[in-house]
Amino acid sequence: MDFRSDNVTGAAPEILKALVEAASGTVSSYGEDPITARVEERLKEIFECDLVAFPVATGTAANSLSLSLLSPAWGAVFCHEGAHIAVDECGAPEFYTGGAKLIDLPGADGKLTAAQLAALIPGGLGVVHHAQPAAISLTQATEAGTAYRPDEVAAIAELARRHGLRLHMDGARFANALAFLNATPAEMTWRAGVDILSFGATKNGALAAEAVVIFDKALAAEFAFRRKRAGHLFSKMRFLSAQLDAYLEGGLWLRNAGHANAMANHLAEGLGRIAGAKLAHPVEANEIFVDLPEHAIRGLQADGFQFYRWLGEDQTLLRLVTAFDTKEADVAAFIASAERHAARANEKVA
Amino acid sequence: MDFRSDNVTGAAPEILKALVEAASGTVSSYGEDPITARVEERLKEIFECDLVAFPVATGTAANSLSLSLLSPAWGAVFCHEGAHIAVDECGAPEFYTGGAKLIDLPGADGKLTAAQLAALIPGGLGVVHHAQPAAISLTQATEAGTAYRPDEVAAIAELARRHGLRLHMDGARFANALAFLNATPAEMTWRAGVDILSFGATKNGALAAEAVVIFDKALAAEFAFRRKRAGHLFSKMRFLSAQLDAYLEGGLWLRNAGHANAMANHLAEGLGRIAGAKLAHPVEANEIFVDLPEHAIRGLQADGFQFYRWLGEDQTLLRLVTAFDTKEADVAAFIASAERHAARANEKVA
Amino acid sequence: MDFRSDNVTGAAPEILKALVEAASGTVSSYGEDPITARVEERLKEIFECDLVAFPVATGTAANSLSLSLLSPAWGAVFCHEGAHIAVDECGAPEFYTGGAKLIDLPGADGKLTAAQLAALIPGGLGVVHHAQPAAISLTQATEAGTAYRPDEVAAIAELARRHGLRLHMDGARFANALAFLNATPAEMTWRAGVDILSFGATKNGALAAEAVVIFDKALAAEFAFRRKRAGHLFSKMRFLSAQLDAYLEGGLWLRNAGHANAMANHLAEGLGRIAGAKLAHPVEANEIFVDLPEHAIRGLQADGFQFYRWLGEDQTLLRLVTAFDTKEADVAAFIASAERHAARANEKVA
Amino acid sequence: MDFRSDNVTGAAPEILKALVEAASGTVSSYGEDPITARVEERLKEIFECDLVAFPVATGTAANSLSLSLLSPAWGAVFCHEGAHIAVDECGAPEFYTGGAKLIDLPGADGKLTAAQLAALIPGGLGVVHHAQPAAISLTQATEAGTAYRPDEVAAIAELARRHGLRLHMDGARFANALAFLNATPAEMTWRAGVDILSFGATKNGALAAEAVVIFDKALAAEFAFRRKRAGHLFSKMRFLSAQLDAYLEGGLWLRNAGHANAMANHLAEGLGRIAGAKLAHPVEANEIFVDLPEHAIRGLQADGFQFYRWLGEDQTLLRLVTAFDTKEADVAAFIASAERHAARANEKVA
Repeated sequence: MDFRSDNVTGAAPEILKALVEAASGTVSSYGEDPITARVEERLKEIFECDLVAFPVATGTAANSLSLSLLSPAWGAVFCHEGAHIAVDECGAPEFYTGGAKLIDLPGADGKLTAAQLAALIPGGLGVVHHAQPAAISLTQATEAGTAYRPDEVAAIAELARRHGLRLHMDGARFANALAFLNATPAEMTWRAGVDILSFGATKNGALAAEAVVIFDKALAAEFAFRRKRAGHLFSKMRFLSAQLDAYLEGGLWLRNAGHANAMANHLAEGLGRIAGAKLAHPVEANEIFVDLPEHAIRGLQADGFQFYRWLGEDQTLLRLVTAFDTKEADVAAFIASAERHAARANEKVA
Repeated sequence: MDFRSDNVTGAAPEILKALVEAASGTVSSYGEDPITARVEERLKEIFECDLVAFPVATGTAANSLSLSLLSPAWGAVFCHEGAHIAVDECGAPEFYTGGAKLIDLPGADGKLTAAQLAALIPGGLGVVHHAQPAAISLTQATEAGTAYRPDEVAAIAELARRHGLRLHMDGARFANALAFLNATPAEMTWRAGVDILSFGATKNGALAAEAVVIFDKALAAEFAFRRKRAGHLFSKMRFLSAQLDAYLEGGLWLRNAGHANAMANHLAEGLGRIAGAKLAHPVEANEIFVDLPEHAIRGLQADGFQFYRWLGEDQTLLRLVTAFDTKEADVAAFIASAERHAARANEKVA
Repeated sequence: MDFRSDNVTGAAPEILKALVEAASGTVSSYGEDPITARVEERLKEIFECDLVAFPVATGTAANSLSLSLLSPAWGAVFCHEGAHIAVDECGAPEFYTGGAKLIDLPGADGKLTAAQLAALIPGGLGVVHHAQPAAISLTQATEAGTAYRPDEVAAIAELARRHGLRLHMDGARFANALAFLNATPAEMTWRAGVDILSFGATKNGALAAEAVVIFDKALAAEFAFRRKRAGHLFSKMRFLSAQLDAYLEGGLWLRNAGHANAMANHLAEGLGRIAGAKLAHPVEANEIFVDLPEHAIRGLQADGFQFYRWLGEDQTLLRLVTAFDTKEADVAAFIASAERHAARANEKVA
Repeated sequence: MDFRSDNVTGAAPEILKALVEAASGTVSSYGEDPITARVEERLKEIFECDLVAFPVATGTAANSLSLSLLSPAWGAVFCHEGAHIAVDECGAPEFYTGGAKLIDLPGADGKLTAAQLAALIPGGLGVVHHAQPAAISLTQATEAGTAYRPDEVAAIAELARRHGLRLHMDGARFANALAFLNATPAEMTWRAGVDILSFGATKNGALAAEAVVIFDKALAAEFAFRRKRAGHLFSKMRFLSAQLDAYLEGGLWLRNAGHANAMANHLAEGLGRIAGAKLAHPVEANEIFVDLPEHAIRGLQADGFQFYRWLGEDQTLLRLVTAFDTKEADVAAFIASAERHAARANEKVA
C-alpha cells in the first residue's frame, strides 16, 4: 500500500526471469553480445524506423547524455520548471553538457506549449553574450501525470526545426503516455520531430534499465564515447539488455503501463467522489495529484498508506503513483480509507 | 573455454538468487532501503573500521568518482601507465575531476614504487604554472596480474601523506589480490594508508556492482552529490545492494576469487611446462601473461579457445583471464591443447 | 555623443600615463612585481582590512572565477534575472563552476531582497536530488542603475550566513554605487558580509582591468590555480596592475565615478522635464532607463546621438549610460535635442 | 641584465604609442571596432589567405581555446613533453577541452617527428575505451629554442590529415622562428597543414596580446562563444587590437624577433668560446640552453645577471632568453663576465 513512487517497486517477473537466463555462459562484453543487438532490432520494429539505441541504467544518465548531444556547453535548453532535468538531477544536464543553461518555464498541467516557446525562441541566437538556444526537452508523460498529444509535440518540433534547435523527449514514463494516447511510438516521437528519446523501463518493471533511442543517427557517433567516459558503459552489458529485451517482448512494456494507468484511473474516480477532494491535473498516466481534506490524509497515514504531500508537510496536495504491480485491492482499500476518514471529518464539522 | 576477460562471464548463482529475492515488495528508493544499509554494515565488519560505502554499477564510475574527491581540477594523479584509469576509461577521470592530469608511469609487473614516486613528488607543488600533485592511484591486483604487498602500499602512502597527496586504490580485482596475499582487508587498505577503495564485484561474480569505500569520512560529504549528478544513483538501489550483500555474505567474494586464482595457477603451471612458453609476470591473481609459440597460439584458436593477443595481432604475448566460474576441465583442456600444438610445432622445426 | 555604454569609452589619461611608465625595464613576471604588490596594499587601505586581490582583465573573468570559489559544481547561485552573470556572460559562471545552476530571480529596480530570498533558501539543502544552495550574487550598482544600501546587503548576507551560503558582489560599477551612497568601501562589502568582490575598473576609466578582492582569505588558496588554468594570469602582470594602481591612486576611481553619476543626474533631470518622459528606475549611478516619445527618439537618432532601445527595436524604453569622460556639453545637447523633438511631436499631436 | 625570460620585458614603444592613440573617443565594444577589423585584414595579407583572427590577452588562452576547437573532451592531443600546454598552463587545455588527454612525448631539441607520431597514431581510434587521437600541437619556435622546418611541419600535418587529426601550432615565439627560417608565414602554417595558430605578440613587444589565427574557417563558428564564456572577450577590444595592429604594421614583429634572435646568436657565439661551456640545443630563435661551469654561473650571479638554472638549483644548465629590447652591451657584458669567471675557475683547478 505504497503510493510514493513507481520507483519503490521491485521488478516484473518476466524481466527477472530474463535476467537469470542471461546469466550463463560467456559472451563478448561492452555491448557486443546478441541480446544487446536484439534490443536494438526490437526498437527498430516498434518505432518503425532505423535508429541507434544505447542501454544505460538510470534515467538521469539517459537524459543527461542525450542533452549533451543536443546542446553545446554554451547552449540553452528549454524545459518545464517541474521537469526532472530541471529539479531532480542535481545538475546532471549541466555536468554532462559542460554547463548548458536550462531555461525553466511554467506551464499548465506540466506542459510547455509552442506558443509559449515561440515568444522566447530564437531570442539571442547568434549574440555572443547570451546562451544559445539549442534544444527543447519535453517530458512524456509529464511530471504532472499528463501526456502531450502528438500534435502538441509536432508544433513544438516545428518551432525547434525552424530555428535550428533539437528536440529531446524524457520518456521515463513513455509507456504510460503511449498506453493512454493510443498513438504509435513513431507518431509520438520521430514523426512528430523528436531527435532523441530517453526510453524508460525502470519505473515500469525493470530493475535499472533505460534506452537512449537516437532517431537522428548522425548524432549517435559521439554517444558511445560520452557513455563510456561517464562510466555508463556496462562491461556485462547483457544484464542491462536482457531487462530491455524482456520489457519489449510481447508488449510487456505496454501491458505494464496499461495496468498502472488503469489503477490510477480507478484511484482518481474513487477519490473524485469524496467531498472536498480535487484533482490538480487530468489523470492521463500513472500519477494522481489530488487535494484531500487534512483529516482524510491523516487517516490514510494512520491506516498505513504511504504517499507524499507534494508541496510540503503542511500542504494537502498529495501525489499518488501507481505502478505495473499495483494491486486493485490496494487501490480499493485506499479509496475506502479516504472515504471513511473524509466522512468522519465531515461529521465532526457538521 | 573463453579466457578473454573476467567480464565475459555471467553471474554467480548466489548473487542472482539474492537479486530475485530482493525484487518483491516496495522499499524506499535511492539507497534508503535496508539492504543498502546492511551492505555498509558488512563492509565495516570486513574492514574492521568505520567507513562510508556507496554502491555504483561500474568500475569506471567507482574510480572516477573516487578520484574526483581526491584531486582538484588542477591536480596531478600519479598512476601506472597500464592502469585502467589511464588507458581504458576514455578519459573518465578527466571528466569527473574537471580536467586533472594523469601522470602515467612505467613500472615492472604493473606496479609503482615509493622510490620512483619520491623522485617526482612533490615537484611543482605550490607553483601556479603546474598541475598540482594531488593523488596516487594504485591498482590492486595490478593490470599485470600481480599484487602489491601491504608494505609496498604503506611506503607509497607514507610518501603521499608527507606531501599532502591522497591515495586511491582501484580494487576491481581486490578480492583476487586479497586471496593471494593472505592479508586482511584492513591491512591492505586503510591501515596501509588508502583513503578510498574502489571495491570491485562485477568481475568476480556480480552482474554490475562495485562499492566505493571511503575510509576518510570527511571525504564522503560530497560523494552523494557527485554520484547523483553523474546519473550513478540508482532509484531502485536495492538491486545494486543485493548483489553486494550476497557477494559479501559468508565470504563468497573470497571464495570466488580464490577459485579464479587457483585456476590461474593451474594454467600457469601447465603452460610453464611447455617449451618456449614464458610468463611475463608472476601469476599472483587471476591473470596470466604468457608468451607462447605462434604455432601453439594458432592451434589453440583452431581448437576454439578464446583469448587476447596482448600487444597486437602479430604478437605472441597472450593474456589469459580466469574467473569465479572457470572450469578446471577447461583449464586442463587449454593446457593440453597448447602442449599438443607446441609439440607439433617443435617436431616441424626439428 | 555616444550613450550606448560605459565600455565604448577609451581610457583615463592618468591610467594611460601609468601604463606607459610601467613599460620600461624588466621585472618579475606573473605578478611578482612591485606594482602588483602595491595594488594589494592600496586595496587593504581602502577596504580597511586584510584581503587578497587578484587582477584580471575582464568582468566576466572576475565574476566567474569568484563564483567558482563560492559554489561547488552542484551548487545553486541566486541572482537577479537581469544580472550580468545570468544574461550577458554566455554561461561563463556555469563553465567556471563546472555546471552550477543560476537561479534567476525577478526584483524591482534590479535588486534582490532578503525577504524574497528567505522564501527560497535553504530549500533542498542536503537533498541529493537538488542543486545545493551555495551562493548569492548581488550586482552593485545594479543593472537597473540603482544601488543596494549597506543594510540591504547586510540583511541578505545574514540570511546567507545562517544557511551556509556565500555572498558575491559583482562590482563592475562598484565605484558608481559608492559615489552615490556615501558609504565606505568596507561598509558596503565585508562589514555587510560580502565574501568576494569583483572590483571593476574597466567601465570607469581603465583599458581592461578588474580586481578580484577576496575578504575571506581561506577562499584565496585555490584562486591562483583557477586563474592560471583559465588563461587569466598575465605574464606581464604589471600592465594590469599599473591600471589598477593609477585607478586607486588619489581617489581617481571615485572622482571618475562621481563625474559619471553627476552626468547621469543632469541627464535624468533634463529628460524629466520632457512631457511624456518617464524614468523606469531611480537614477543612482551612471545608467538611466527612460521612456521617451517615439518622435523624440527618432529625432535624437537623426541628430547623431547613440544609445540602445532596451527592450527591442520597436520599444521606447532607452538605456543611457554616462561615463568618466562624458562631457557636460553632450548631456546638454542630448537634453536639448530630446526637448526639441518631443515638443515638435506634441505640436503635431495638438 | 635580465635573461630570465622574454616576459620580464616591458613593451615596444611603437605598441605603447598605438595604445595611447587608440584611447580617445568612443567606438563599438566587443570587437566591433575598426582597429580589430584592420588587424584581421593585416593577418590575411601576411598569411596570404582568408582566415579568421581572434585577439586574446594571453598565450594560455590562445592555446587552450584553440585546442578546444580541435579536440573533443574524449580526445588525445599529442605534444612534446616540454610543451607549454603540457607543463606550464596548470591544466588549461584540459579545462578548456573538458578533459582531453595530452600525450606528452619526448623528442630531441624540443621537436616531435612524423616518424615518432606515426608509431602512435591512429592507435585506439574508434575504440570506445581509449581517448581518441584528435590533434597534434607543435610549438614554433620550440621550448628548446629551435625551429621546425616547413617540411617537418608538413610531414606531421600529412600524418594528421591521413587519420583525421587536426594540427595546432603554439606560436608564442612564432616571429622568432620565422625570422630564423626565412620562410613565409604561409609556408610555415596553412600551406604546411596547420589548422590553427596561436600567434604570439606578448613575448615580442606587446603588453598582453595574442591572435588566434584560424585557417580552417569552419572551425571558427564556435570560437566566439568559447572566448566569451571564458571571459576572454574584451569589452574595450580596441586595446588588444591596437597592440596587434602596431605589432604587424611595417614589419615590427619581424624586426623585433630578428633583433632578439641576433642577440641570442651573439650570446651563443660568445659563450661557445668558453672552455667547458656546452650548448644543449642549436640556437635558432631567442633562447639559449647552455651548460656552464659552476664557478662561472656563480660569478655571473654575483655580477648581477639574472637567469634560470633550467633543471634545478643544483644543476649547471642555464636558460638564457633574449628579447626585442635586449641591449648588445648587456650581451657583451654577460659574455665577458662568464669568460672572466670561467677563466678564474680554470686557474684554480690548474
